[in-house]
Amino acid sequence: MKILVTGGGGFVGARLARELLQRGQLMGRPITELAIADQAPPPADLLADARVKVHIGTLLAQAPLFASGFDGVFHLASAVSGECELDFELGLRSNLDSTRLLLDGLRQAGNTPRLVFSSSVAVFGPDASNPLPDRVGDLTLPSPQTSYGTHKLMCEYLIADYTRKGYLDGRSARLMTVCVRPGRPNGAASSFFSGIIREPLAGIETTCPVDADVTHPVASPASTVRCLITVFEASPEALGGRLAINLPALNVRVGDMLQALQDVAGPQVRQRVRFERDARIAAIVAGWARGASAERAQALGLRPDASFHAIIEQYIADMRAAGLQASALGGLPS
Amino acid sequence: MKILVTGGGGFVGARLARELLQRGQLMGRPITELAIADQAPPPADLLADARVKVHIGTLLAQAPLFASGFDGVFHLASAVSGECELDFELGLRSNLDSTRLLLDGLRQAGNTPRLVFSSSVAVFGPDASNPLPDRVGDLTLPSPQTSYGTHKLMCEYLIADYTRKGYLDGRSARLMTVCVRPGRPNGAASSFFSGIIREPLAGIETTCPVDADVTHPVASPASTVRCLITVFEASPEALGGRLAINLPALNVRVGDMLQALQDVAGPQVRQRVRFERDARIAAIVAGWARGASAERAQALGLRPDASFHAIIEQYIADMRAAGLQASALGGLPS
Repeated sequence: MKILVTGGGGFVGARLARELLQRGQLMGRPITELAIADQAPPPADLLADARVKVHIGTLLAQAPLFASGFDGVFHLASAVSGECELDFELGLRSNLDSTRLLLDGLRQAGNTPRLVFSSSVAVFGPDASNPLPDRVGDLTLPSPQTSYGTHKLMCEYLIADYTRKGYLDGRSARLMTVCVRPGRPNGAASSFFSGIIREPLAGIETTCPVDADVTHPVASPASTVRCLITVFEASPEALGGRLAINLPALNVRVGDMLQALQDVAGPQVRQRVRFERDARIAAIVAGWARGASAERAQALGLRPDASFHAIIEQYIADMRAAGLQASALGGLPS
Repeated sequence: MKILVTGGGGFVGARLARELLQRGQLMGRPITELAIADQAPPPADLLADARVKVHIGTLLAQAPLFASGFDGVFHLASAVSGECELDFELGLRSNLDSTRLLLDGLRQAGNTPRLVFSSSVAVFGPDASNPLPDRVGDLTLPSPQTSYGTHKLMCEYLIADYTRKGYLDGRSARLMTVCVRPGRPNGAASSFFSGIIREPLAGIETTCPVDADVTHPVASPASTVRCLITVFEASPEALGGRLAINLPALNVRVGDMLQALQDVAGPQVRQRVRFERDARIAAIVAGWARGASAERAQALGLRPDASFHAIIEQYIADMRAAGLQASALGGLPS
């Protein structure tokens, strides 16, 4: 199989590419080529794999690549929510126009490739006529309150229509907030959900921009990657007609995330997080789902992470495996 | 006020333009200029009005016009459902790209114009996880089953986001099937809903491509135009946060439409309609709403047509007023 991962240089994308290379197959068919399209190069271990072909640049410059005939596509490339709120045209270009160009390229190739689009729980939001339920479900009416969520939702519907017409075999997996992300804060308004765990573990003081009572649906990187592959491998029949699907979420309260941090890493680490409200971030988060359910993902055998403790432990194990004890875990008591 | 009507050369658009010129004002402010953008020129009476400025050509060629600073816009131009099913790229271009270009032009102008987008009941459709209710409501989850409905829905969400950002004061009115349309059949899959009334009244034999038990939400041209103006004049507060709104529908059974035709025009006229199933049309119609409700439009004071008899009588009166007795009503017994 010839597979394309857009955004394969990013955190989730690189982790997905690594997992695909390790499995060596999808739907029982060997992966012979893994193309990675991203603005930044992927990590060295991916570059070293002979099956990997790298295409650096914006997606809008990749029309010939998209039309070159892939068997499967994971479309993860995206500008993040905070960036799109600050730069309206960037959002349109990176999240709407790029997806359209990708779909049209795949349609031109004419081989009806299977495609998983990384949509987002950000398609949901409250409006005056339609308050959000405590847990948004697969059939909750979306009312996105950000450009990011708007464009993700528009792409879901576009992919459903290309699929109905037989140009693709597409499906949209609505990712929950991926937590704990390593590295530095990014422009996502949800960045702090990782920051309040990652920074104190690294020994860095940080702030939490929302109240302890805020609840949010999260998923670990390992769970997210597993879900993306399962959704890819699901038959159209198993998806049951509707092509946008909520991925499983652990619905967690910010105060409980910090309690879990204390339980796993000790009070000294926990105390590096101070509550300091950021009105801009708090306003964006107030427009998001407080929790999510995922009946249809469950029917595919997918389950949320067992606990937020397990999510923190996964992050610590990942950092140890990558030999990043000093930089990423320097705040852990010895 | 400087007003733009896209699709103002079409049936609903021209009727709307005529009504606006006759009222002379919107929201209490005089209409000083009425720009009509369409591929075909509008009727002569509109051309003769000094306030009317005509811009002939595809919308995609009208970027400078869109950025020229309008106070209000009625965006009605659209390729119709049947056309979009037959020509996928035409649909993308005419219904998605054109709307995007219009919105970006209006945003560039920088004066936050009020805009009404003519969306459609075609945003609703059944899927295996989400059967349609007997009457689709303002909060029914859309699952469009045509490219036309998909693009309309995408534009609704795009307009909501431009509005949230303060670039527009937009709202999307979901039109029901407009009936009775005069003139010739068009490419819309719903064209027969008018055809089975219009053709026999003109003395022409015609076929009905779906069963008598098919039910459908319809509205007269006069009601549709009145609703578009009311939705334009509604304050954002009156719309209650949600910007897409179902217009009122008369939910009617095909068999009862023909009975009304017989009641109004006699059995001789009714007998010119023969049932002859068209699988392509029937499949498209099977993916549409069987009826609609419109609680939010009702809160704005809007009501459906009183009866299908009244809709037929409106058509006959319109044709008489236009002096078209011989051609349009030649089948009526004298």
